[in-house]
Amino acid sequence: MYRIKLTSVAVLCLMALSVSAQKKSKGFPYELPAEKPDRPLSLGMERSYDKYGATPQANELYTQFKYTELKGFDYHGHDGTISRRDPSKIIFKNGKYYVWYTYRNTTTSPKGAAKANDTIPSADWDLSEIWYATSKDGFTWEEQGVAVPRPPKPAVGWRSVTTTDILEWKGKYYLYYQGFLEISGKKGDDCPVAVSYADSPDGPWVPYNKIVIPNGAEGEWDQFSIHDPYPLVYKGKIYLYYKSDSKNNGDYIRMQGLATADNPLGPFKKHPLNPVIGSGHETTMFPFKDGIAALVIRDGNEHNTVQFAKDGVNFDVAANVEFMPNAAGPFIPDAYTNTKDGRGITWGLSHFTAVNGWSTNHAILSRFDCDLSQDVNDPNMKKNHVYLRPEFFYKMGLTAAQKKRIAEENEQLNKK
Amino acid sequence: MYRIKLTSVAVLCLMALSVSAQKKSKGFPYELPAEKPDRPLSLGMERSYDKYGATPQANELYTQFKYTELKGFDYHGHDGTISRRDPSKIIFKNGKYYVWYTYRNTTTSPKGAAKANDTIPSADWDLSEIWYATSKDGFTWEEQGVAVPRPPKPAVGWRSVTTTDILEWKGKYYLYYQGFLEISGKKGDDCPVAVSYADSPDGPWVPYNKIVIPNGAEGEWDQFSIHDPYPLVYKGKIYLYYKSDSKNNGDYIRMQGLATADNPLGPFKKHPLNPVIGSGHETTMFPFKDGIAALVIRDGNEHNTVQFAKDGVNFDVAANVEFMPNAAGPFIPDAYTNTKDGRGITWGLSHFTAVNGWSTNHAILSRFDCDLSQDVNDPNMKKNHVYLRPEFFYKMGLTAAQKKRIAEENEQLNKK
Repeated sequence: MYRIKLTSVAVLCLMALSVSAQKKSKGFPYELPAEKPDRPLSLGMERSYDKYGATPQANELYTQFKYTELKGFDYHGHDGTISRRDPSKIIFKNGKYYVWYTYRNTTTSPKGAAKANDTIPSADWDLSEIWYATSKDGFTWEEQGVAVPRPPKPAVGWRSVTTTDILEWKGKYYLYYQGFLEISGKKGDDCPVAVSYADSPDGPWVPYNKIVIPNGAEGEWDQFSIHDPYPLVYKGKIYLYYKSDSKNNGDYIRMQGLATADNPLGPFKKHPLNPVIGSGHETTMFPFKDGIAALVIRDGNEHNTVQFAKDGVNFDVAANVEFMPNAAGPFIPDAYTNTKDGRGITWGLSHFTAVNGWSTNHAILSRFDCDLSQDVNDPNMKKNHVYLRPEFFYKMGLTAAQKKRIAEENEQLNKK
Repeated sequence: MYRIKLTSVAVLCLMALSVSAQKKSKGFPYELPAEKPDRPLSLGMERSYDKYGATPQANELYTQFKYTELKGFDYHGHDGTISRRDPSKIIFKNGKYYVWYTYRNTTTSPKGAAKANDTIPSADWDLSEIWYATSKDGFTWEEQGVAVPRPPKPAVGWRSVTTTDILEWKGKYYLYYQGFLEISGKKGDDCPVAVSYADSPDGPWVPYNKIVIPNGAEGEWDQFSIHDPYPLVYKGKIYLYYKSDSKNNGDYIRMQGLATADNPLGPFKKHPLNPVIGSGHETTMFPFKDGIAALVIRDGNEHNTVQFAKDGVNFDVAANVEFMPNAAGPFIPDAYTNTKDGRGITWGLSHFTAVNGWSTNHAILSRFDCDLSQDVNDPNMKKNHVYLRPEFFYKMGLTAAQKKRIAEENEQLNKK
């Protein structure tokens, strides 16, 4: 009884204070409320609180990205004959980090589909194998050699095995990868998903020799390729995200799909709501809180966003970011633990393509760091923007055709 | 009767075709539908069609930005004593383009609020005047001199008049600007909005000598400043957007408000749903179709977006863009025509700040081009992304504190 009375008095006092505060100031408050205030808000402010949190700094899925050159990889003078790209997720086993990636070592740089043959690659990912490397610190890497070689024709991947990712499931390891059945570029990328498995991250890797995720049926968005297979364990199942390419007016439209399975060797069932993400260029997801977060990069309506889906299917924008990694393979300690409270990510490897131009076209691996983690709070990673000098912007200059159009528009105005 | 029969037959045929198409392919189609298809869609695909259009290329509010150095402005060897920033919208009159801007010509570069006095500026926009320039082509400009000088103390703006914008209304011209009543930086920016008017863009400009948009009441989000006054004519009224700064944990949170008036000299009524945009750093709006579009730059949850509001108040994200102009003053031919079908923008002036560091802190004006226009369709401006070399990313490197944290995390993992 005594306690109830005190509480009632407190509530009355708070109400009185609140009324007095309202009288004093009717506008939106100067100190930005941490929680959505109970007052009429514009759609923009509603969205700010509902989707992101009061500020980017308060948003666990907002970050800047930092980049560091890696030590330990040789690129043959960057002449285009050696390429490393599309790193897998990173795992920590046996006291070291492991990463798998697309490795090309050919006599020439890529020459396009028309000039390609048994030894000349068409594209940077043609005539490639899956190699792997280990590291004690994530900055200096020791290349360990091949994990999955190209199998003999006509097995899936005979032309190239690329763009791998790792799954750990019940004490075994599974490498999923794109298995090319023809020269990339002839009609796009004809590559379904194949898998190899091993008892140790050091191998040996046994090829399953079957397509585990086939291309879509004729006329479907993923009829020609399943790119970037990217497995996570979520809701007790394997959630494997992938990228494919619809077409629009002759342009490829990168979109992302989901296939789920109870067993690493399948059968995988494509989600009926595919594509689950309509933007982006590579798959990069991670368990976050009770759902799945995704980096959506480079292409499409919602490029340069971090997205979140409570069901792993229906993603919404959670943060607008910039300078994202092109092809992130993050270190995700809880990628395969079937977590219901994903902790997020702070670093991984990515790649840069065409690093010294197209005649010596090759990619290099690099490291990115970020703060997309519930366990880290790094204000330096939460800055609003990166300062860039005018010279940077002037490099993005007008074309001759654009200058001509502008001159014509000026002339039209002068005539009026 | 005959017509009805034919229509019914046509409908039956279409239904049959549709059923057959569905049997052939149940997945999302390979050719990306231009319009939202009638099938179950993921939230991401729903949003893609509802908010943006099928692709960025089909989205009138998606663009890249190109930048060009201007000719005609001298900066005294870029020693920090001359600064030009915050260009107004551009208008075309008397056979030439006009722009107004903040012009500072002081004996030293800015030295901070503590060291500032009657001749030493605190900030880049301190001790400034409104100057203007004209151009035949938008690239080469002729500086015409002062439009609005600092008035004698204690008139509004006696310390500095900055960040102006132009309104054309019933054959007269109005320059709105920030009128500083103290040294900027003492407690923030104490600047309400003042206005001067003229019969010609060449002046002479008559100061109204009254505050037309006051700072908010104590405790309100805009209690200390009204920045970047930005007038448009919309729905027969003057819609003047502005920026102010809430605080959050000691950081300024840039947000944008709206004040409307039936008369250029006021009274202006602040919108009850202010702030109408919770992100961004400068005001840049333009009439678009039947509503108002806004560039939302640099800061906040929805930085790097182009937004749209059918009512000029409740904005939603319409496009995710990159490398936006820092402080755009666009050329908007229909900014003051009370249009119900805004045509959009293709160019304007902007500024770059701290162009050669902070000891010689000053800003320069530059030109930007884009395709946010219904009347231009420039595929080169609609590219998905800008390619950047690895060196660019490596400049965004880890701090010493971050390297230390990472080393500690590695150590922890090794101990496990």
